[in-house]
Amino acid sequence: MAQGSIKRRGLMLVLSSPSGAGKTTISRKLLEREANLTLSVSATTRPKRPGEVDGVDYSFIDQNAFDRMVSEGAFLEHATVFGNSYGTPRAAVAGALDRGRDVLFDIDWQGTQQLRESAREDLVSVFILPPSTEELARRLKTRAQDPEDVVQARMAKAADEMSHWQEYDYVIVNEDVETSVAAVQGILHAEHLRLDRQVGLRDFVEALRKGG
Amino acid sequence: MAQGSIKRRGLMLVLSSPSGAGKTTISRKLLEREANLTLSVSATTRPKRPGEVDGVDYSFIDQNAFDRMVSEGAFLEHATVFGNSYGTPRAAVAGALDRGRDVLFDIDWQGTQQLRESAREDLVSVFILPPSTEELARRLKTRAQDPEDVVQARMAKAADEMSHWQEYDYVIVNEDVETSVAAVQGILHAEHLRLDRQVGLRDFVEALRKGG
Repeated sequence: MAQGSIKRRGLMLVLSSPSGAGKTTISRKLLEREANLTLSVSATTRPKRPGEVDGVDYSFIDQNAFDRMVSEGAFLEHATVFGNSYGTPRAAVAGALDRGRDVLFDIDWQGTQQLRESAREDLVSVFILPPSTEELARRLKTRAQDPEDVVQARMAKAADEMSHWQEYDYVIVNEDVETSVAAVQGILHAEHLRLDRQVGLRDFVEALRKGG
Repeated sequence: MAQGSIKRRGLMLVLSSPSGAGKTTISRKLLEREANLTLSVSATTRPKRPGEVDGVDYSFIDQNAFDRMVSEGAFLEHATVFGNSYGTPRAAVAGALDRGRDVLFDIDWQGTQQLRESAREDLVSVFILPPSTEELARRLKTRAQDPEDVVQARMAKAADEMSHWQEYDYVIVNEDVETSVAAVQGILHAEHLRLDRQVGLRDFVEALRKGG
């Protein structure tokens, strides 16, 4: 029997990084290359930006709807950042994991902490660091549409995000994107081989032991 | 800074399997392909077989010397199998891990349990299963030099070893050797990226946060 035939439970892959460390590009390439990985679509109350699509980039909802979902326990995690609320709806994720599909989360340390509390066994968390302070500063300044005060806030947030690096399972220094993507894929594939995720092994081993 | 420049602590990689599941071939290819991985040389009281080299395949010692090392706590783990004693000398392994080198252990579940008790954080354990009962039976019968009663004992031991599959971190079904070797390499490389092993990260992140 091939390893791929063993029934397995999906995992929740969190990539976090300070702004400008390259998480967005890594996530995009990862989703292109991993057929069994889907991006978790968060709900948010922030306004839709030009080019974004409702239900794809985010589910754009109003604050009342968001607060109602919070009180119903409909979120796996939620947080408020710069006055806007973000949350991961629980139901879609649970269904994916049961079917052996992996879900990618592009969330910050606050959301990751909540996931760790509610779903520790399913969680694989990866922190992505920039390769140097020079590179970090360079990347934070290239977002043309952002006003100066937002850039300053991002720099403070970057330092704050980086203070949470010790809460993650894995840490990758993103010197070049291809190496980093390959590293995350390697983590994903190794984590697939963990004992607890291969739920079909029990029956398989019992058959081996009876026959052997 | 490249990931490889971050100082890291080595790990202890244990491959276990029932006899005939392919562990020996996988271990050999792994050592050929991973420059930073060395095989732990066990001490043993069993007689040297034709072709084996003292200090390479094993350190061949007598029972008195072995028992003395046990009483001195010189072994990381030890066990007696089919009347012969085997043990992993502690000092060489500790030195390797401190220098960021990985050590491969070809030991059974008894030795692995002891390693888990004495060095849990350093341990990465992988259980290798045969792909089918037919393949397992086929492989157990191809050792021409072994008498029938030893073959029977190996089959019973195989079933017993397989009952310990749940004690391991990862489980690989060895359908073809190249895929299995690549899977173990993937586990090794992912484990290198774990937070706790990258001991140089603390200084690196502090520098990033000050600069950012």
